Amino acid sequence: MAPQLDSFFKQVDSSTDVFIERLRKAVAIPSVSAEDARRPDVVRMGHFLADELKALGAEVELRPLGKQPHKEHLDLPPVVLGRYGNDKNKRTILVYGHYDVQPAEKSDGWATEPFELTVDDKGRMFGRGSTDDKGPVLGWLNAIEAHQKAGVDFPVNLLMCFEGMEEYGSEGLDDLIKAEAKKFFADADAVCISDNYWLGTEKPCLTYGLRGCNYYSIEVSGPGADLHSGVFGGQAHEPMTDLVRVMGTLVDSKGNIQIPGIAEQVAPVTADEEKLYQSIAFTMENLHESLGSTTTIHDETKPTLMARWRYPSLSLHGIEGAFSAPGAKTVIPAKVVGKFSIRTVPDMDIDTTNAVVYKYVEEQFAKLGSKNSMKVYAQHTGKWWVASPKHWNFSAAAKAVERVWGVEPDFTREGGSIPVTLTFEEATGKNVLLLPMGSSTDGAHSINEKLDKRNYIEGIKLLGAYLHYVAEEPQN
Amino acid sequence: MAPQLDSFFKQVDSSTDVFIERLRKAVAIPSVSAEDARRPDVVRMGHFLADELKALGAEVELRPLGKQPHKEHLDLPPVVLGRYGNDKNKRTILVYGHYDVQPAEKSDGWATEPFELTVDDKGRMFGRGSTDDKGPVLGWLNAIEAHQKAGVDFPVNLLMCFEGMEEYGSEGLDDLIKAEAKKFFADADAVCISDNYWLGTEKPCLTYGLRGCNYYSIEVSGPGADLHSGVFGGQAHEPMTDLVRVMGTLVDSKGNIQIPGIAEQVAPVTADEEKLYQSIAFTMENLHESLGSTTTIHDETKPTLMARWRYPSLSLHGIEGAFSAPGAKTVIPAKVVGKFSIRTVPDMDIDTTNAVVYKYVEEQFAKLGSKNSMKVYAQHTGKWWVASPKHWNFSAAAKAVERVWGVEPDFTREGGSIPVTLTFEEATGKNVLLLPMGSSTDGAHSINEKLDKRNYIEGIKLLGAYLHYVAEEPQN
Repeated sequence: MAPQLDSFFKQVDSSTDVFIERLRKAVAIPSVSAEDARRPDVVRMGHFLADELKALGAEVELRPLGKQPHKEHLDLPPVVLGRYGNDKNKRTILVYGHYDVQPAEKSDGWATEPFELTVDDKGRMFGRGSTDDKGPVLGWLNAIEAHQKAGVDFPVNLLMCFEGMEEYGSEGLDDLIKAEAKKFFADADAVCISDNYWLGTEKPCLTYGLRGCNYYSIEVSGPGADLHSGVFGGQAHEPMTDLVRVMGTLVDSKGNIQIPGIAEQVAPVTADEEKLYQSIAFTMENLHESLGSTTTIHDETKPTLMARWRYPSLSLHGIEGAFSAPGAKTVIPAKVVGKFSIRTVPDMDIDTTNAVVYKYVEEQFAKLGSKNSMKVYAQHTGKWWVASPKHWNFSAAAKAVERVWGVEPDFTREGGSIPVTLTFEEATGKNVLLLPMGSSTDGAHSINEKLDKRNYIEGIKLLGAYLHYVAEEPQN
Repeated sequence: MAPQLDSFFKQVDSSTDVFIERLRKAVAIPSVSAEDARRPDVVRMGHFLADELKALGAEVELRPLGKQPHKEHLDLPPVVLGRYGNDKNKRTILVYGHYDVQPAEKSDGWATEPFELTVDDKGRMFGRGSTDDKGPVLGWLNAIEAHQKAGVDFPVNLLMCFEGMEEYGSEGLDDLIKAEAKKFFADADAVCISDNYWLGTEKPCLTYGLRGCNYYSIEVSGPGADLHSGVFGGQAHEPMTDLVRVMGTLVDSKGNIQIPGIAEQVAPVTADEEKLYQSIAFTMENLHESLGSTTTIHDETKPTLMARWRYPSLSLHGIEGAFSAPGAKTVIPAKVVGKFSIRTVPDMDIDTTNAVVYKYVEEQFAKLGSKNSMKVYAQHTGKWWVASPKHWNFSAAAKAVERVWGVEPDFTREGGSIPVTLTFEEATGKNVLLLPMGSSTDGAHSINEKLDKRNYIEGIKLLGAYLHYVAEEPQN
């Protein structure tokens, strides 16, 4: 039976100005986690959130995370842990968001002051953090407030975990999640994260997968110091020549990874999965616009989205130690480090992938017959994540999308990583849903970041509706 | 008939302290041409030289070169043009040197103050400019003075051209040389430049060849801006992949240039040339020491020296626009520029070489089947230089070496470029000889630059003796 949501929705509409005002206050706090000097603002933002939650009747703890690694003079901002409702007869949903933001200066090219929420006549609300991730975080608070004002019973117990270091590697968060999995988060039945974006601008989506990332370095060295190419060119094995030749064997121009043992690990496409691609609102024009070019490998959306979401890719990022400035320098670099990464997908295994990469790179280097030395190693690795889009957590969210937006959501994955997703899944053992509020044009990490008023207000309805549907959805 | 040189040599020996004192005064003037703030010191050094020359009875002009290109607030330091002797019955020898020096700060790691000449108990005279090129420049002045004091007739008319911008691209000099070729330099019969080094530490050499250098850029671009490899990896042709694959086809790890039409231009080795390599004082250990490693392509000195001097080489210098810092960044660079250069040798032609390089790079890029754009172009080109080591200018110098050092000199080339050499040859149409004073361990552009007292004093004798032999050597 569809939940009664009309009075909640009506209340959200009539509270629009209040909710925008709340976002304005949040955006005005420049909680930039990457800048040491802004750390007090990050902490202030955590306190702002905690105070708002307390005013709504939530239990709140500001959990300290200690000193920042490698910057021991700085305290990490606290994690805001909140609980709203404690009814054993209701499901408990754990939601995550972050209250810190990317750096922003007007002089970077912003059309408006980045820390002043500015709403234009198209309803675009410009401001740093508007969409990433203050809008979605406040969405949960606004949903609570609208229930209270409308006199509608809150359908679930809500656990909240809002961190202040997401834009700087989520320092300290993994340990806290693991430590609280059987404590503060113990009765969570499912997890919902609103910190990603629609695939386009018109159709909402539910996200059930993320690629992992293994990042590698290939280090080639020979001479004791950089050499002059006039004096030494032709006499010694040059590390840069060896490195470039090895890097050139990793992937072809069409994106085909040349390393044996990678493709073999990739899970075959199932019929169910195939179906998910049929109705997805995505055009090649969307991609051309975000690329700023038409230099796509595929000409159609299905292979393009599969390349983004469910196949691995290999990118060459750059070379450390070589000449990288404009102009001309006749140097033979003595030691160069090539950087590349592989985006990983089910069922790729980190150790297996590392092993085939090392083996291949070593073979390619050996073929060169060079006297230089070569080392290949992983700088960091991160697992892919994929959830079942058939879980009740997803089916409830799909119903909520249909109720609020009047369309079935796209079921999407993302090419990038949101490591905390996997941490929550592994620590709690529960299904994790990514339920985005903003759209593909929001420019999360760019200048002129914005959240459309429509996405914010309908998004608040969506978060509330999701909680109602998830409260009722039968276990599967 | 061997010239009478004993009283000149004796005078040089007895003037040792005076000559070292002259070098001490010159080193004390920090004539760093690359540093704007030091420009008055560079000018002061030019005046010091002019005053010393005038005191020796030379005619001297301080020739202004106008404003420094791109730094219009700075006057270029003057070129010191000098003439000593004007006897129609004598040969006229034009000598070149430079009175500016590389930057130096004690804090760079110098063991002594760089602008205080410091002589240690092994006779090493440490100081910036000691060997590059104040020692050799003063060598000519000291030779004049020793002739005067010894009462020996000066054997030639000496034209001098000493510049103050050599370490910063010899700004303005080429135009002056061309303009004065038929004026101030009109009666020059041969040219001698003392601004390079012995191949080792024990055996003097005469240098008759230099490689040229063509420096190329390969620019590959696609997306409108840098992309995130998570979001876009696998969907677009990546400029970095294309560039690395193209750069990887230019040269193999053993230094073999893969571009058709390069090797075909190289002059064959003649029997005469082959003979010059037989007695050269050079060991693989010398090379290992200067490389700081044993990563040499060849195991023997002859192919190694040929690779340095008379065969082209291709070095990959680096990539602009890619990630070049330490650490990990998951960027797909939107536009990357690969830099490489080819050291050129007789009979390679600049235009032909450019043409085969462009053709090859374009073919390699076309093979990739990429939608990205590629441009290849030369940043700068410079011709090789080779003189006949059988010219009377060289045979005279060889006799002088044998007289002063008691050994036949090595006839060497160099792998790098000294562009002024070619300019003098082309402008005057006369034979140019490179007659070094310092040795391979002097560290011209490094910390702790030095000139050995022995090389300085015997070098003064050598410059003087050369002038006597060159005055007598029959035309060939």
